[in-house]
Amino acid sequence: MDSNNGLIYLDYAATTPVDPRVLEAMLPYFSEKYFNSSGVYGPGQECRSALDAARQKVADALGCRPAEIVFTSGGTESDNAAIGGIAMTLRGETKHIITSMIEHHAVLHRCHAMEKQGFEVTYLPVDGDGLLDLEELERAIRPETSLVTIMLANNEIGTIQSLAEMARIVKAKARSLRTQIAFHTDAVQGAAYLDLDVDRLGIDALSLSAHKFNGPKGVGILYLRRATPFDPQQLGGSQERNRRAGTENVPGIVGAAMALQIAAEGREANAKKVAALRERLINGIEERIPRARLNGHRTQRLPNNVNYSFEDTDSQWTLMALDQAGIAVSTGSACNTASLDPSHVLTATGVPANLALGTLRLTLGASNTIEQVDRVLDTLPGVIEQVRATAPQGAAT
Amino acid sequence: MDSNNGLIYLDYAATTPVDPRVLEAMLPYFSEKYFNSSGVYGPGQECRSALDAARQKVADALGCRPAEIVFTSGGTESDNAAIGGIAMTLRGETKHIITSMIEHHAVLHRCHAMEKQGFEVTYLPVDGDGLLDLEELERAIRPETSLVTIMLANNEIGTIQSLAEMARIVKAKARSLRTQIAFHTDAVQGAAYLDLDVDRLGIDALSLSAHKFNGPKGVGILYLRRATPFDPQQLGGSQERNRRAGTENVPGIVGAAMALQIAAEGREANAKKVAALRERLINGIEERIPRARLNGHRTQRLPNNVNYSFEDTDSQWTLMALDQAGIAVSTGSACNTASLDPSHVLTATGVPANLALGTLRLTLGASNTIEQVDRVLDTLPGVIEQVRATAPQGAAT
Repeated sequence: MDSNNGLIYLDYAATTPVDPRVLEAMLPYFSEKYFNSSGVYGPGQECRSALDAARQKVADALGCRPAEIVFTSGGTESDNAAIGGIAMTLRGETKHIITSMIEHHAVLHRCHAMEKQGFEVTYLPVDGDGLLDLEELERAIRPETSLVTIMLANNEIGTIQSLAEMARIVKAKARSLRTQIAFHTDAVQGAAYLDLDVDRLGIDALSLSAHKFNGPKGVGILYLRRATPFDPQQLGGSQERNRRAGTENVPGIVGAAMALQIAAEGREANAKKVAALRERLINGIEERIPRARLNGHRTQRLPNNVNYSFEDTDSQWTLMALDQAGIAVSTGSACNTASLDPSHVLTATGVPANLALGTLRLTLGASNTIEQVDRVLDTLPGVIEQVRATAPQGAAT
Repeated sequence: MDSNNGLIYLDYAATTPVDPRVLEAMLPYFSEKYFNSSGVYGPGQECRSALDAARQKVADALGCRPAEIVFTSGGTESDNAAIGGIAMTLRGETKHIITSMIEHHAVLHRCHAMEKQGFEVTYLPVDGDGLLDLEELERAIRPETSLVTIMLANNEIGTIQSLAEMARIVKAKARSLRTQIAFHTDAVQGAAYLDLDVDRLGIDALSLSAHKFNGPKGVGILYLRRATPFDPQQLGGSQERNRRAGTENVPGIVGAAMALQIAAEGREANAKKVAALRERLINGIEERIPRARLNGHRTQRLPNNVNYSFEDTDSQWTLMALDQAGIAVSTGSACNTASLDPSHVLTATGVPANLALGTLRLTLGASNTIEQVDRVLDTLPGVIEQVRATAPQGAAT
């Protein structure tokens, strides 16, 4: 599915192709079984059954009940809904949210908005590898804390947090404070490669985006543990058990569920495969490119994530040169490519602004090959050398 | 596209099949051109161009600028975003919203939520045909009014409001009060058959849902006139000019735009065709079924909408009997089929609760035929008679 005229696609963290099996499962629901699943007539009920089956598949992949799954329009909506929906229910009583400085903007910007609405938010710092300090998390919890939201794995640098340990800390502290604290995680980047069992993770709410695991764009998943307080954010009809109004996107949901099932089944093998490619890429860069700094934790990282800052380079130039060589990578988050500010994630890990501007993120997929990695390793050193030689000094320093 | 084993589908207001041309246009963007349109590399930019072209198509259909179009996840999101996004920007200064009692729940429930946040909301009544009183609208406007939201055409009874006249009243009153009042319309039911030119309608914001006009589910459109104050409701990345965060659903948006273009091109012919079917259906019911009351305005109504209350019937029974005869209709809004309360729309037009519970909505599409309408007219009288004879008296009275 990646035969785009020889393109080497290394931006799987930005998005992934829809698996042909997923597309095939979706196709009947566009023009044939197009019915509104609220229709009482037979064909409408068939679409209802398809939704039920999809919800069951997702529940199986997450180790939860189908009723705990809410289908949304994407990871961003899931994050926004979780934070707004959980924190708002406790407004007036508890008014404190804890998050980290390296969250996706869907979380950070929603948290900023919550501050405008009277909430206090603690943005926990991270160390040079992007890891949170567990003791710092514990100290941040107060009697008025209602929500902790920490991402499972970072979208830029790939660092994986110790969520299960965090969950134990949050729950123990909540018990001792005799309060209820919900623990949400943006797991968008983890779906293809990490264990998403909600009980093992110990979380109450979890966000996923189907297009990050070979499902369709425009479909997200929000897991909400039973009895987690939640105020719906999108109001209207009574769909999704009154937790998310709007006609259900039947083909999208059917596709998302099948994609998650396929991802879960292939998780171990795919993680092993891309981790080997990642190591080959990292080792190659270390060997061949001087003054390159790996961002993120060396081992506690997504198996498909490689993120380097190259001293004295401007990543826009590098990106363009790689594009001309048929290699698609990114500078970091795909959601903020228009921004010229250095990444908030890199800044939080202590990368100086001028170095941050020379950053490339290469994110692998299971269909990448050793040959493709080797072609990148043949190309990248020369590109970096050329950018260092020709880029205007103002941009790179 | 409607050859579902001879099914007669008369629930086009609930949803419509994706036009095969639309699906064909969408297909390449799932597994081949799957790139994140924020990608700086060539293939990402190709997807960006596809989005730009889609936005231009929608702008052409609405008579506006491409920059005034925001793609969302559906009509419900568009309504929620318009009301929350416009009213919130004026919070603290102006705190009054005007709407009607017969709006879709996406509008009404959002307005209820705004009340909890300190806004005052006026819910204007309608007459027996579902029409608002223009003088009543004018009297409701106050110095602190920031938003008027009135639907173009009702989803249950099909009544079309005089939006252009309302817009003139709203704008004139705003000028005399030296204030800014935004005028939003939920045009979800009008897209396939009514003129959507935003200047002729005189509106500042307009909501559409692609699956109501043979586009895909999970895609909506929000038109926002330039300089209309708007606070984004879904926060995160900088997509949609910072008005709606989240990776763009490229196939969905491409499909929605093509569907709207096709709808605009076929609008007059399709409206004429379904209006003839509607008249045949209404005349047939009037002739053959006693004690049937047409809901909604007789002529100022959607060309595809037929809505009848049948005395001494329980529409759940009628629906089931019609389903067995291969005829798919609904009781009213598809979004609230689980509710046993009488429709708020029918209640607002003065239909007594026991009569409201005997209501059927039959909504036509351009692929319906005279033969199908005649088969409905052959079947429905007997079904109604049977339901009247056998339904438990408690349910029907």
